[in-house]
Amino acid sequence: MRSGRQADWTSGDTATAFAGVRALSEELAQPLSDADATIQSMEDASPTKWHLAHTTWFWETFLLRDHAEGYTLFDEKWPFLFNSYYEAEGERINRFARGMLSRPSLEECVAYRHHVTEAMEQLLGREDLAPLIRLGLAHEQQHQELLLTDIKHALFQNPLGPAYHDTYGPSASPAAEIEWHEHPGGIAMIGHDGDGFAYDNEGPRHRVILEPFAIADRLVTNIEWQQFIDEGGYSDAALWLSDGWAWVNEEKITAPLYWEDERAFTLAGWQKRDPNAPVTHISYYEADAYATWAGARLPTEFEWEAIARGQDSAAASPAHDAHAGNQLDRLADMDGAPHPRGSSGLFGDCWQFTRSAYLPYPRFQIAEGAVGEYNGKFMSGQVVLRGASCATARGHSRASYRNFFYPHQRWQFTGLRLAKDI
Amino acid sequence: MRSGRQADWTSGDTATAFAGVRALSEELAQPLSDADATIQSMEDASPTKWHLAHTTWFWETFLLRDHAEGYTLFDEKWPFLFNSYYEAEGERINRFARGMLSRPSLEECVAYRHHVTEAMEQLLGREDLAPLIRLGLAHEQQHQELLLTDIKHALFQNPLGPAYHDTYGPSASPAAEIEWHEHPGGIAMIGHDGDGFAYDNEGPRHRVILEPFAIADRLVTNIEWQQFIDEGGYSDAALWLSDGWAWVNEEKITAPLYWEDERAFTLAGWQKRDPNAPVTHISYYEADAYATWAGARLPTEFEWEAIARGQDSAAASPAHDAHAGNQLDRLADMDGAPHPRGSSGLFGDCWQFTRSAYLPYPRFQIAEGAVGEYNGKFMSGQVVLRGASCATARGHSRASYRNFFYPHQRWQFTGLRLAKDI
Amino acid sequence: MRSGRQADWTSGDTATAFAGVRALSEELAQPLSDADATIQSMEDASPTKWHLAHTTWFWETFLLRDHAEGYTLFDEKWPFLFNSYYEAEGERINRFARGMLSRPSLEECVAYRHHVTEAMEQLLGREDLAPLIRLGLAHEQQHQELLLTDIKHALFQNPLGPAYHDTYGPSASPAAEIEWHEHPGGIAMIGHDGDGFAYDNEGPRHRVILEPFAIADRLVTNIEWQQFIDEGGYSDAALWLSDGWAWVNEEKITAPLYWEDERAFTLAGWQKRDPNAPVTHISYYEADAYATWAGARLPTEFEWEAIARGQDSAAASPAHDAHAGNQLDRLADMDGAPHPRGSSGLFGDCWQFTRSAYLPYPRFQIAEGAVGEYNGKFMSGQVVLRGASCATARGHSRASYRNFFYPHQRWQFTGLRLAKDI
Amino acid sequence: MRSGRQADWTSGDTATAFAGVRALSEELAQPLSDADATIQSMEDASPTKWHLAHTTWFWETFLLRDHAEGYTLFDEKWPFLFNSYYEAEGERINRFARGMLSRPSLEECVAYRHHVTEAMEQLLGREDLAPLIRLGLAHEQQHQELLLTDIKHALFQNPLGPAYHDTYGPSASPAAEIEWHEHPGGIAMIGHDGDGFAYDNEGPRHRVILEPFAIADRLVTNIEWQQFIDEGGYSDAALWLSDGWAWVNEEKITAPLYWEDERAFTLAGWQKRDPNAPVTHISYYEADAYATWAGARLPTEFEWEAIARGQDSAAASPAHDAHAGNQLDRLADMDGAPHPRGSSGLFGDCWQFTRSAYLPYPRFQIAEGAVGEYNGKFMSGQVVLRGASCATARGHSRASYRNFFYPHQRWQFTGLRLAKDI
Repeated sequence: MRSGRQADWTSGDTATAFAGVRALSEELAQPLSDADATIQSMEDASPTKWHLAHTTWFWETFLLRDHAEGYTLFDEKWPFLFNSYYEAEGERINRFARGMLSRPSLEECVAYRHHVTEAMEQLLGREDLAPLIRLGLAHEQQHQELLLTDIKHALFQNPLGPAYHDTYGPSASPAAEIEWHEHPGGIAMIGHDGDGFAYDNEGPRHRVILEPFAIADRLVTNIEWQQFIDEGGYSDAALWLSDGWAWVNEEKITAPLYWEDERAFTLAGWQKRDPNAPVTHISYYEADAYATWAGARLPTEFEWEAIARGQDSAAASPAHDAHAGNQLDRLADMDGAPHPRGSSGLFGDCWQFTRSAYLPYPRFQIAEGAVGEYNGKFMSGQVVLRGASCATARGHSRASYRNFFYPHQRWQFTGLRLAKDI
Repeated sequence: MRSGRQADWTSGDTATAFAGVRALSEELAQPLSDADATIQSMEDASPTKWHLAHTTWFWETFLLRDHAEGYTLFDEKWPFLFNSYYEAEGERINRFARGMLSRPSLEECVAYRHHVTEAMEQLLGREDLAPLIRLGLAHEQQHQELLLTDIKHALFQNPLGPAYHDTYGPSASPAAEIEWHEHPGGIAMIGHDGDGFAYDNEGPRHRVILEPFAIADRLVTNIEWQQFIDEGGYSDAALWLSDGWAWVNEEKITAPLYWEDERAFTLAGWQKRDPNAPVTHISYYEADAYATWAGARLPTEFEWEAIARGQDSAAASPAHDAHAGNQLDRLADMDGAPHPRGSSGLFGDCWQFTRSAYLPYPRFQIAEGAVGEYNGKFMSGQVVLRGASCATARGHSRASYRNFFYPHQRWQFTGLRLAKDI
Repeated sequence: MRSGRQADWTSGDTATAFAGVRALSEELAQPLSDADATIQSMEDASPTKWHLAHTTWFWETFLLRDHAEGYTLFDEKWPFLFNSYYEAEGERINRFARGMLSRPSLEECVAYRHHVTEAMEQLLGREDLAPLIRLGLAHEQQHQELLLTDIKHALFQNPLGPAYHDTYGPSASPAAEIEWHEHPGGIAMIGHDGDGFAYDNEGPRHRVILEPFAIADRLVTNIEWQQFIDEGGYSDAALWLSDGWAWVNEEKITAPLYWEDERAFTLAGWQKRDPNAPVTHISYYEADAYATWAGARLPTEFEWEAIARGQDSAAASPAHDAHAGNQLDRLADMDGAPHPRGSSGLFGDCWQFTRSAYLPYPRFQIAEGAVGEYNGKFMSGQVVLRGASCATARGHSRASYRNFFYPHQRWQFTGLRLAKDI
Repeated sequence: MRSGRQADWTSGDTATAFAGVRALSEELAQPLSDADATIQSMEDASPTKWHLAHTTWFWETFLLRDHAEGYTLFDEKWPFLFNSYYEAEGERINRFARGMLSRPSLEECVAYRHHVTEAMEQLLGREDLAPLIRLGLAHEQQHQELLLTDIKHALFQNPLGPAYHDTYGPSASPAAEIEWHEHPGGIAMIGHDGDGFAYDNEGPRHRVILEPFAIADRLVTNIEWQQFIDEGGYSDAALWLSDGWAWVNEEKITAPLYWEDERAFTLAGWQKRDPNAPVTHISYYEADAYATWAGARLPTEFEWEAIARGQDSAAASPAHDAHAGNQLDRLADMDGAPHPRGSSGLFGDCWQFTRSAYLPYPRFQIAEGAVGEYNGKFMSGQVVLRGASCATARGHSRASYRNFFYPHQRWQFTGLRLAKDI
């Protein structure tokens, strides 16, 4: 068994979790050359190498530098390179210039990792640092997902269509007709309830009134999306939000990202598209237009959470996704038979767009210091996605988790589940 | 008494309201030359002439064309010019090209108005059309406000700083310290309650849970904003949303729009800034940063509405604003002494940013047909403002009214009122 | 007879020339409203009003201010508005903001003109100022041409296609086959020879070696250009300069500016295109591609001048152009029967692209002071055009005249004449 | 002795030249990792890997594919990747996407090179192909220079300032006052005279009249450029071409590229700037402004060639340049003591801007076929540089050589030599 498999790092002791998460990041970079790990395909994405080093910088900066006696920086010039967006931590490299870092090499970045991983050992037992360590683990796991989605996007730019790995999941069986789970409405408790790790933006837990609604028992599939295309979905202004319609026309969007003819680009390179797999790599605008076309709507994040409550992580049975391929067996602790595609799974197939804007919950307070920049400052202009994708670390599958992206972004494994008023 | 004064068009009979609203639009254009009425300063704004003709196109298209027997278009080429964004109504002029319409002349546009105003007479008594007529009135009143804010922006581009009119209000008396109105929280009824006209986006009326909060009894003033500037508000990243910080730096923002040294540009040209007047012409990003700096936050739109309920329109005592000058006595039915600036007025000074994204209320349905494009399709990426400004028609001051703009826009009379958790 | 007709302002006494040129500018603005005179369609073009005021500013700044005792500026804020590009004369309005000048009104600009015209009377007899006055006249005549081409471009933006005037010339008779005038080559004297006015960039006169060449006896016509289109000229990369091919693809160019189906936009509005008229409104890239397609090339400016020597102004018989319509009878002193289109005329139909870059002649020196900015600083990145168009003032038709534009610009009356090696 | 040293590939037999040039390209890539060889810093530049493969594609396409019996493409997908701009050779990768080619790896590209190099052996003896082979050699040598200037630009983006190699030349001795070489003018023969290889754009040889002029005996140095800066050269509009002034202000240019405080970025990383070395990495706009400031001008390309005639290649004594460091001993066959910096050398220090636009010589004809795209289609918008830089292959130093770049480009080793009228 490879390092890291089977583990859900949110349980178990800190040292094991730490070792597992650190090892997995490096394992994810294994299939890549130094050159692969260097390129950056767009401002939204980062090089693999940068993810490896940035997560390490996080430990170095917020744990070692501040709490490990006598620790000296691995290289005092590197924080400028590997700080992401922490204004309180000073100047940093222009975001788009991350792709110019042919040096340090991948090997040097891994050496940096090992240096920091070892230095961290002395701090892993400290109770007072446990919250910060859990945040560091969660942070690194988020970057593991981004590492995968970013390298997918980078390899996609290459006309040769190189693959990240060569295994590709079996195809899914046809999805049944959607069934609608009804919810009677009422007052729901929303937000993390205090057990285990959660980000600050998942709280405070609070009450929300829900009107009666129904939610689909499964995700929208590729074959259904194809029908939306065939019936002119991308050229009917009436289906689109105004911003979405402008986006479709300016960017000349006619299909999900990575679609071309009958194929789709995956981490296993170009593959015949699986009609029964959940549609992924769509923007919020597309998700909303599809829902309108289907006579439905997107759920709110509160409706989604009310449904997902009690069905998260532990119970998750994430799909063997076509896109992440056998990466899943590392990421998602899945070893059984493939999940029926287009399946019910709230977690593990793709992130699901909600119609909720990413805003603070009542009484949300931004934490003091640089760590306070983690979530709060992004609370404008973005939309909430719920669930977890095939590239999400298992510990990140929880009902209260709030992922967020701009409405036009679609390089994540993003899909949709329909809802409606009843 | 001039035409249109004193009237609150939401009450009274349709024919009187129609005549009053139509006359007021033309009265607002009186101070302007054909050339003034032609220029367009940015894509967000439209020429005066275009506002006059577009509101007329609305009556022609949705009332006369469809319901008035034998009506023929005033000019069959004009719908292409004066449709704003109704995709269902076909192709239209590129938005930025509105400023190229030196023809038709202002005089011809007024002739168009008179033609349509007269033709409408036959329809004003029809009960079945009453909802559409009320929408047309509200629509034209919205454009009256835009006409004022757009011409202000256009005249501002001119280095000569020409004035729209020459009267300028008296200055305000100093504002007292903010007092905080507390609200115990609980379930609030939100949305229009069915009496009188409201836009579709103000409903359906529904319940929302509020946590206990406090809201300031008055708006933030210029002198307070100056303090924010003096203490480095525009250069402290920690105060800003991430998008806001990017905007501040890219656009080199250091003060509200229209500020220059001790002066501000107003509809009466460049004037010494009144320290006690409410700050206006700020973006959402600025409002949010100020609130953070002040140790407070923006209210949600639900908090705002809960407070405003019962204090709207009828009770409003809008300020004699420095910016709209004596335009107010037409727009806002104000004839008394000037309001203390920075005053409590929920309505009539400026629109107040909330921290709420502009989203549909539960069970909101987009109406059928072109009129359905009025509000719903804008429900992404924008933020809700509540209240009413000095340039808002009186009938538009109501507790449930939802105005919305993108977070960077600030050419409207936009300000803020602080809130906080208790 | 109207003011200004028949006059060639380069001959005759200064006072008459001055009065004539000043009157003609105003006459050209006669068909336009204040609004027409205010709009600006692109950064390259200026509003009519601005041309009227800028030419006046030139007299005020370089003549009256410096040489007329006791003269005070008409309005001390106006130089900021009406300086074009003279860095030595201080700050000026952003170029694209010229279209925001709804004030001063057209009427006020004309009052400014009259004020300056009258004040100039005292200086017209001064011998020492004669060179500067001749420059002022030539400058104003250049702006007369720009006034026409700029208003054409502005009116073209209007979907209604309004006309500047309503007369339109008779159509041309079919052009005969091109005949090639051969030139044996040798040493040619190039540049203005000292009689009459010329710009600094037309000298110093100097020797140039010409290789034997032939030049077409007439311009390329619309019908010939249509054949270039029909045979795929715009989609054959092999015909184009690299920059031109990029331009064609980025701008999606498929025909000359102002062409649409069988029509072309003219100063008389949309008209059926005259197949025998010279093609106009093409870019250098298009001219070069056409010449390549035709198995020929563009002439150098020296070849053109060698041919044109002795055939300029006095002998010119400019065509009654379809685009400038009856404006010509003011501009070009033409009263006879219309010229056969596509005719031999070196002057009066359109500017003719040469393959020469706009560079200084040997020993060219930039003049001292602000007037030195007239020509020299533009000597990079532009190409030379020779001849004169239907919109050019008669006095500007001379063999040594060097007009210049960027290779992508085509809102002037630009066409081509073929050349080849022999 | 390393492969390739001492050799001037323009002499000697084809097989030796071919082997030497091919080996040198690979030698130049030796200091670079796969990641270094992958990154692309701007659209104007290409990755090292791409240069290695593109030059190979040139041999494969124009020689092997068309002339070597039974040759099959190394990989049929690669021509899409490695065609540069040959429209006749079909579609190719978007220019900016060259930096996304993490695959093929550097190692695979070298394997491609070896495959093609070996396959070429059978063709090297064919007389009929000799001209094409010489073109291929010259082409590859041009890319050797670009490889160096492009990797310099790429490494410069990295905040760590990594070096390409670690040796750095000795500093130059102070330059003497400029002495002016006078030329009496007259008829000069311009263009390649038929011995040895030359590009098509260097001919046809033809006569040009020169007016008397003087040219500086040495290049402008860093210390002189510093004085230009200190005296406000970058902020005095009067010194600049109009396009240049716009460029300086938009790009906020205040010094040559690669200058920072007292340092400059070189292929040996950041180094203290040598005051006596020739200034390099300036744009045409800067060169022209400097010349104006110095009361001089740039030479024409004809003046430059007239002076250089008889002093080229064979006699060249190129400087041991600070920027290319010991790369020179491979590139430029220099083994003596370092040249006094700011020295007279027409060749080997830097390319020298002329005031001539890059245009075809009289009777220039574009060759048939794809090879015809080599030079001719770039003849618009660019300026001619003469000489040869420290990164130029020795065989490229000849009096008739015409290098060309856009006036704003400055990532080549570009400098200037003054001229003036006498």
